[in-house]
Amino acid sequence: MKFCSACGSAVSHIVPDGDNRLRFVCNQCQLIHYQNPRIITGCLPVYVADKQTEATVLLCKRAIQPRKGWWTLPAGFLENGETTAAGAIRETQEEANANIKIQNLYSLYSLPHISQVYMFFRAQLLDLNFSPGIESLEVKLFKESEIPWDELAFPVISATLKYYFADRKLDTYPTRYEEIIRPSS
Amino acid sequence: MKFCSACGSAVSHIVPDGDNRLRFVCNQCQLIHYQNPRIITGCLPVYVADKQTEATVLLCKRAIQPRKGWWTLPAGFLENGETTAAGAIRETQEEANANIKIQNLYSLYSLPHISQVYMFFRAQLLDLNFSPGIESLEVKLFKESEIPWDELAFPVISATLKYYFADRKLDTYPTRYEEIIRPSS
Repeated sequence: MKFCSACGSAVSHIVPDGDNRLRFVCNQCQLIHYQNPRIITGCLPVYVADKQTEATVLLCKRAIQPRKGWWTLPAGFLENGETTAAGAIRETQEEANANIKIQNLYSLYSLPHISQVYMFFRAQLLDLNFSPGIESLEVKLFKESEIPWDELAFPVISATLKYYFADRKLDTYPTRYEEIIRPSS
Repeated sequence: MKFCSACGSAVSHIVPDGDNRLRFVCNQCQLIHYQNPRIITGCLPVYVADKQTEATVLLCKRAIQPRKGWWTLPAGFLENGETTAAGAIRETQEEANANIKIQNLYSLYSLPHISQVYMFFRAQLLDLNFSPGIESLEVKLFKESEIPWDELAFPVISATLKYYFADRKLDTYPTRYEEIIRPSS
């Protein structure tokens, strides 16, 4: 950030009066430009054909960077004006053309080194009419034994899948909060 | 937003190629300025003297707008580089000089009309060494029967307190997700 988005003047990176953090402050109009973490919202789409059949999970192979070619759960940046559940449904439509019903908020991760908060809703995949969206190379259902653990795109994906397959044995799905701490880049 | 924060040129409010939402895009350097919801993180500080004494909850009377003079739970905007739990601890220190231990992620609210996501952690108030911070007129412990229900600052505060006093009877505190829908301003 070099210029004020309100008046176009140059900004300085200083600690404003009464604050204790560096902020971008306009040299001209004095506006403080706060910068805050962003939310990534997504879901864990579970398909259960019937009680006799093992549940499967829908994963998407990423067509975009970062981690192009790696498997992920449908997720993306929450937009202004939408709820986190609506964002998860939208991302699942965009990335997998898949129809889901939200069940519960299932996992939330803080990633302070990249100023992101990730959250996943457990969801019921309503039918088999799914296909790759523009950001996916392939979308596919996986049994637990088929999950490509070594080809998962992000730590939040493997953590959420591990929680799910453990919880499924007890048929109870409490919300998890986890902090993923890495050196800042 | 009128000017590009990277190059200082004027921006237009248009739908970029391959997108389906209005964004601010720089007329000169073409940078797309995404705007996303912000996170407010806070806690529900509970003080339990001993097993024979009724638990109390710490509330803060707001010294700042909006809702100056109304009671709230300690909470504020999550900062870049911090976890949501660390943000809740920091805000509790800033607003009430109170020492807490986080117990679990307790409630999460989507407020799409103001593009905010609120979350509260249930926390143990560790001692009685609390006092008003600069953003509080008063900080005080309340029994359930003393909660000033008609003077609570925001719907997310009353919702979280209602969940808590109901859950306390069962001594189980599952995470709640709720959407608070209002006409956009």
